Amino acid sequence: MGRRDLDSEDIVRFDQRRLPDEDVELECRTVDELVSAIRELAIRGAPAIGVAAAYGLALAATRGDDVDAAAAALAASRPTAVNLTWALAEMREDPSPAHARRLHQEEVERCRTMAAHAAELFGPGTRALTHCNAGGLATGGYGSAVGALRAAWERGLLAHVWVDETRPLLQGSRLTAWELETVGIPHAVIADSAAASLMAAGEVDCVVTGADRIAANGDTANKIGTYALAVLAAHHELPFYVVAPTSTVDLETPTGAEIPIEERSGAELTTRFAARNPAFDVTPAALITAIVTEHGVREPVAL
Amino acid sequence: MGRRDLDSEDIVRFDQRRLPDEDVELECRTVDELVSAIRELAIRGAPAIGVAAAYGLALAATRGDDVDAAAAALAASRPTAVNLTWALAEMREDPSPAHARRLHQEEVERCRTMAAHAAELFGPGTRALTHCNAGGLATGGYGSAVGALRAAWERGLLAHVWVDETRPLLQGSRLTAWELETVGIPHAVIADSAAASLMAAGEVDCVVTGADRIAANGDTANKIGTYALAVLAAHHELPFYVVAPTSTVDLETPTGAEIPIEERSGAELTTRFAARNPAFDVTPAALITAIVTEHGVREPVAL
Repeated sequence: MGRRDLDSEDIVRFDQRRLPDEDVELECRTVDELVSAIRELAIRGAPAIGVAAAYGLALAATRGDDVDAAAAALAASRPTAVNLTWALAEMREDPSPAHARRLHQEEVERCRTMAAHAAELFGPGTRALTHCNAGGLATGGYGSAVGALRAAWERGLLAHVWVDETRPLLQGSRLTAWELETVGIPHAVIADSAAASLMAAGEVDCVVTGADRIAANGDTANKIGTYALAVLAAHHELPFYVVAPTSTVDLETPTGAEIPIEERSGAELTTRFAARNPAFDVTPAALITAIVTEHGVREPVAL
Repeated sequence: MGRRDLDSEDIVRFDQRRLPDEDVELECRTVDELVSAIRELAIRGAPAIGVAAAYGLALAATRGDDVDAAAAALAASRPTAVNLTWALAEMREDPSPAHARRLHQEEVERCRTMAAHAAELFGPGTRALTHCNAGGLATGGYGSAVGALRAAWERGLLAHVWVDETRPLLQGSRLTAWELETVGIPHAVIADSAAASLMAAGEVDCVVTGADRIAANGDTANKIGTYALAVLAAHHELPFYVVAPTSTVDLETPTGAEIPIEERSGAELTTRFAARNPAFDVTPAALITAIVTEHGVREPVAL
């Protein structure tokens, strides 16, 4: 299987920085280009960057590059999502394009399986709130949290989705709203800070997010703002669901305290003043009603 | 006292839509222009729009316009801040420029007095978090919440201010950061959704905001996102202070449930997808540690 196949079919993705205004395809011809694409969020979403790293290792092997060096560069591209490390470990024994494609396909299958599990948590007429983008773009296909919303919608259980715009990079109002529009699910974008008052007004039935890393005790790192939603959901006695494949679970990390949190440039917020820009936060297991993986629904800690 | 005085000295304000990139002065020559300036947030902040409405009524009287019609138009310009109604009621018996200037001066004095009261709540080395802009721009001078921060800073009690950028219109990262920079107070802008994780990390000692309307029972309407901060502060056992002049207190409104909440265009969030954009939310008195007015510090409900 030649390099041409990899370039043209697999590493090509939408450039997620430019959606939804432009459907620009991104082509990474080297591992360095792929590392840049991941670091600059042209490819983003924990499962998706895991899949991309798998293809990256296959690309390195196909090109005859140093596979160890490629793995190290890919592993260092972003610190919080464990899927990178997971995919690279999976690929080391067989860094072939066929193996990367199989991992990709399995990741999409996990999404569909966990979405079916998660949909069972939804009652009729559910108005769900989601944060960031845990959709097809973020996972290699179908989506984790957005996959759950799609499965609930297909079963006639979903009435509406509140989409946190997700500052600073607006993955919600650019990517999740675009995905929901594509599949025809009713939705409205809100400022991240408006979630609380919608909850207080009784307009939210549950919160559903993806995850970038789930520690062994169930503590979950996800896009900055997720922890706030979990506190707010608990205050308003609403269920808070995390939907993520087991490639996101990191049994080597005992608790959320050990998950590295990426700090990104303050210029993503303002170029005029000093800024602090953590890209993720950690939600303690005690605030999570259920974590849904392809293996089913688990309650990390009874609320 | 002629109209020229009013135009050139009093109604002229910074156009707050264009700060901090451009220091453009705004000149309103008619009540209609002033109503537009308030509606489009060129002049914003509850006490500041009260002051502007007072000048507007004086302008109408000076020009020989129908004062009743001018008062009705100004009162209808924005629904949530009660200061508009308050200032117009104050001005009706004597709609003279001198009276408007006196109200303005008194509003600034209230800011300085309540800031001094509020500063007594700060311990040494306080790292405060604020939302939106309750500064000099929002009040006609010195500021309410930002005034409290200034007074604490002058007393050597303030170490740092976290500035919520305040989506969708970024009053925090445009206006509050600019004001804090002007007076030399250390600060960093954050995404609104990052406040929770900074609280969890022990990097926030208190939350300080202004108010747009305080109901008789202490329920407080303020910029969307304030309620979320109050819930998060309670969860992290941090004090939550509201600093506002008595012109913001509305004894005619029994509770927060009766405060009208302005819904603004979804286009402030996204022009591509459906959006919901409430501009304010209501924080129940039970979540407020203290409300500080020019009369002193009051605990609306013991926590």
